[in-house]
Amino acid sequence: MILTVTLNTALDITYRVRSLRPHSSHRVSEVVERPGGKGINVARVLAALGHRVTVTGFAGGGTGRALRERLGATPGVVDALVPVGGATRRTIAVVDETTGDTTQLNEPGPPVTPAEWAAFQDAYGRLLASASVVALCGSLPPGVPVGAYAGLVRTARAAGVPVLLDTSGEALRRGVAARPDLIKPNADELAELTGSHEPLRATQDARRRGARAVVASLGARGLLAVTSEGHWRAAPPAHVRGNPTGAGDSAVAGLLSGLVENLPWPDRLARAAALSAATVLAPTAGEFDPTAYEELLARVAVTTEASAA
Amino acid sequence: MILTVTLNTALDITYRVRSLRPHSSHRVSEVVERPGGKGINVARVLAALGHRVTVTGFAGGGTGRALRERLGATPGVVDALVPVGGATRRTIAVVDETTGDTTQLNEPGPPVTPAEWAAFQDAYGRLLASASVVALCGSLPPGVPVGAYAGLVRTARAAGVPVLLDTSGEALRRGVAARPDLIKPNADELAELTGSHEPLRATQDARRRGARAVVASLGARGLLAVTSEGHWRAAPPAHVRGNPTGAGDSAVAGLLSGLVENLPWPDRLARAAALSAATVLAPTAGEFDPTAYEELLARVAVTTEASAA
Repeated sequence: MILTVTLNTALDITYRVRSLRPHSSHRVSEVVERPGGKGINVARVLAALGHRVTVTGFAGGGTGRALRERLGATPGVVDALVPVGGATRRTIAVVDETTGDTTQLNEPGPPVTPAEWAAFQDAYGRLLASASVVALCGSLPPGVPVGAYAGLVRTARAAGVPVLLDTSGEALRRGVAARPDLIKPNADELAELTGSHEPLRATQDARRRGARAVVASLGARGLLAVTSEGHWRAAPPAHVRGNPTGAGDSAVAGLLSGLVENLPWPDRLARAAALSAATVLAPTAGEFDPTAYEELLARVAVTTEASAA
Repeated sequence: MILTVTLNTALDITYRVRSLRPHSSHRVSEVVERPGGKGINVARVLAALGHRVTVTGFAGGGTGRALRERLGATPGVVDALVPVGGATRRTIAVVDETTGDTTQLNEPGPPVTPAEWAAFQDAYGRLLASASVVALCGSLPPGVPVGAYAGLVRTARAAGVPVLLDTSGEALRRGVAARPDLIKPNADELAELTGSHEPLRATQDARRRGARAVVASLGARGLLAVTSEGHWRAAPPAHVRGNPTGAGDSAVAGLLSGLVENLPWPDRLARAAALSAATVLAPTAGEFDPTAYEELLARVAVTTEASAA
């Protein structure tokens, strides 16, 4: 199975309001809740592609219960979340019906005790035994050490399980040094890691820092991959308009599924780029449009890229 | 005991953010949750004043469970909420740390089925048997008929229990026609009910529509009372600055406690005005500052008011 790790899971709540105006009161016309956090989003896309996925990380409190109830109703996803004393965070996306804009409010997440962190590491070690690949996704909740992902990368490598890391800031910097098989930063994360805003140069620099392969997601410019086998760019046929929420998570799902199917790099990248664009096009944030995916997959252009000077 | 009814209870959540900007993403630095809805706020103030209070209304889902857990930890308040299949609504108050402004997002509340509404009416009838006074507070959740408060007013009157109604719009209009003992509209609610923006004239008109007594809360201008025993105005000694959230609920608590203690009208009004001002002054929204309350109580001016022409 594919294993995804979401240490800071979330109950994602979407509110629709007529028009969001600071310092006033709003009636919410629609409330939608779903399980969230990057690794859970990745798992949902993988399950929709027909893969068997197990999710782990932390869940607790009433929000954690709500998250797990909904996760239990998601076909193809196995819940191996570890209990935590604090409550799983909420994220609130407020959609302004007049402008279509979204305003995001993200809670920090529950404090994780040293005993809970140790319990997670035990569970993670056991789950790796039956994992074909593992993805470590998203932010760290309070109490989890900033070097957490570096440790989890090393455990996966020791177990012989390929590991993808998708996080940001200091957690990414430390995780990269532990030599993950693949990282998938976006343009901002890549610039923060390397200090360079020139994507190809920055991507090559990220490899030198320890990542065996780097796939940078550059929004409308598609994906840029730097691997030991070559450098590629994968882009959808035209600029797609829509909601980019979850597009990066869909790209991670595409990369993971391509890896477990042993696809050549260009095919993995085409799949990741098509899934990402099909997520931007879907009416619901974070979902992908299967018909659009199939159409885009045939039309994504994957080109080889020269090295930076 | 004093009985308060909150048909649309809420889990009140307060977020602190650096600065709220629409169409951007925010880290929430602090999350505070507490049981909410007008009748529950009234009960909390009454309990702090030393009264025995029972709260009823609806609660359901994970949010209802969170609300009841916190309510169970509130000394002096007895939980007689009736289960509902849907989830209790959340209200989110987003406090901007830069400006101090609050932006409010209110969910609509769970749909209430006819069977649930019937179960509530049964419970309400039983609770009235041991109630010295009842307060009907706040908005109606979806599915509860707009004439609900009119029916609950009639049931209370038939049981010989004095009834205070604090709601707005059509629910207030219909409730007033059922002849409640007291209503406590704010200036907007009073204008909507009567069509008049002149408070004394509007207050007298509200009595003609059926309310036996009317206490209008006019913000910084204090309270205006029109009763069969006379007309009064009660105002704090000076304009108080702070957060007016819950000031109206504290006024209701003051009026109820004065009623069950058989205080003369001027003393009830002084208590309500002092509690209301002490709520504006308190650092936490909806709480009241007990020291400020005692000081203000001695200094509230209650004056008799001539009738409108």
